[in-house]
Amino acid sequence: MRSKCLVVAVCLAAAMSANAQAKKSGGSAESAIRAADQAWLKACNTHDAAKVAAFMAPDGAMFPPNAPAATSPAAVQKVFEGFFGMKDLKLTWAPTAVMAASSGDLGFSSGTYDLTFSDNGKPAHDKGKYVTVWKKQGDGSWRVVRDIFNSDLPAAH
Amino acid sequence: MRSKCLVVAVCLAAAMSANAQAKKSGGSAESAIRAADQAWLKACNTHDAAKVAAFMAPDGAMFPPNAPAATSPAAVQKVFEGFFGMKDLKLTWAPTAVMAASSGDLGFSSGTYDLTFSDNGKPAHDKGKYVTVWKKQGDGSWRVVRDIFNSDLPAAH
Repeated sequence: MRSKCLVVAVCLAAAMSANAQAKKSGGSAESAIRAADQAWLKACNTHDAAKVAAFMAPDGAMFPPNAPAATSPAAVQKVFEGFFGMKDLKLTWAPTAVMAASSGDLGFSSGTYDLTFSDNGKPAHDKGKYVTVWKKQGDGSWRVVRDIFNSDLPAAH
Repeated sequence: MRSKCLVVAVCLAAAMSANAQAKKSGGSAESAIRAADQAWLKACNTHDAAKVAAFMAPDGAMFPPNAPAATSPAAVQKVFEGFFGMKDLKLTWAPTAVMAASSGDLGFSSGTYDLTFSDNGKPAHDKGKYVTVWKKQGDGSWRVVRDIFNSDLPAAH
């Protein structure tokens, strides 16, 4: 009887601990995703396309508007090389929501971006929204599996 | 000694079962997300905006291009009402990738869309890509927490 009680008690403790860990993972995963989101912005503001592309997971893809999908880190680097060629570029974004799975291995950040640049000497402005899906890698780092954004502004005609 | 072995054996079995369950959840979650993605397309093709908006989670948001974010099921319904007003509308999409967290409660589908319609009597065509983030609800159904898409075609100038 005593050993049965011990089995139940130990297993119950293990299950409770696993559950607490899962909940903690969800919370800490959201903090980690929020930090990764802002670390990616910081990398963007160095205008170093290789550094920015290093945030992509091996199976990651970026979906820029009015262009085909970039489905490899090398293709993503090319997208950012083009982007960083824009004159007087100023980009910022901020997550308005972050959500993670209870297992703490997948989640997303979403929010708004604001972009200014010079278009043939004329100041130009764009603002919009984004969704970035993050996946925890084997080494514990968070990498981008999908990044997609679009403008809030009416399309030019 | 015997009771200790029993504790270890039972806990090991419990842990192995939990792990198998998590892996199974990941796989079955991906199947469920793929099914939900295509059920949503089917609802879209009824042109019933209320039916389409019912796929949104209470905390879901849709990010259409060249328009502000729709951050409630009611706002999403309005977006689709406008969309279904387009003449000779034909929409299709297909997921090229589906991924779920190991806990089986969050995941995404992403792929390509193809859209034809009449623009002032002239046939028009758009194609692009999308990311839909799905969250398993308390009742076991999968609902959209984020949906965002953009065109592959160059922007009009």
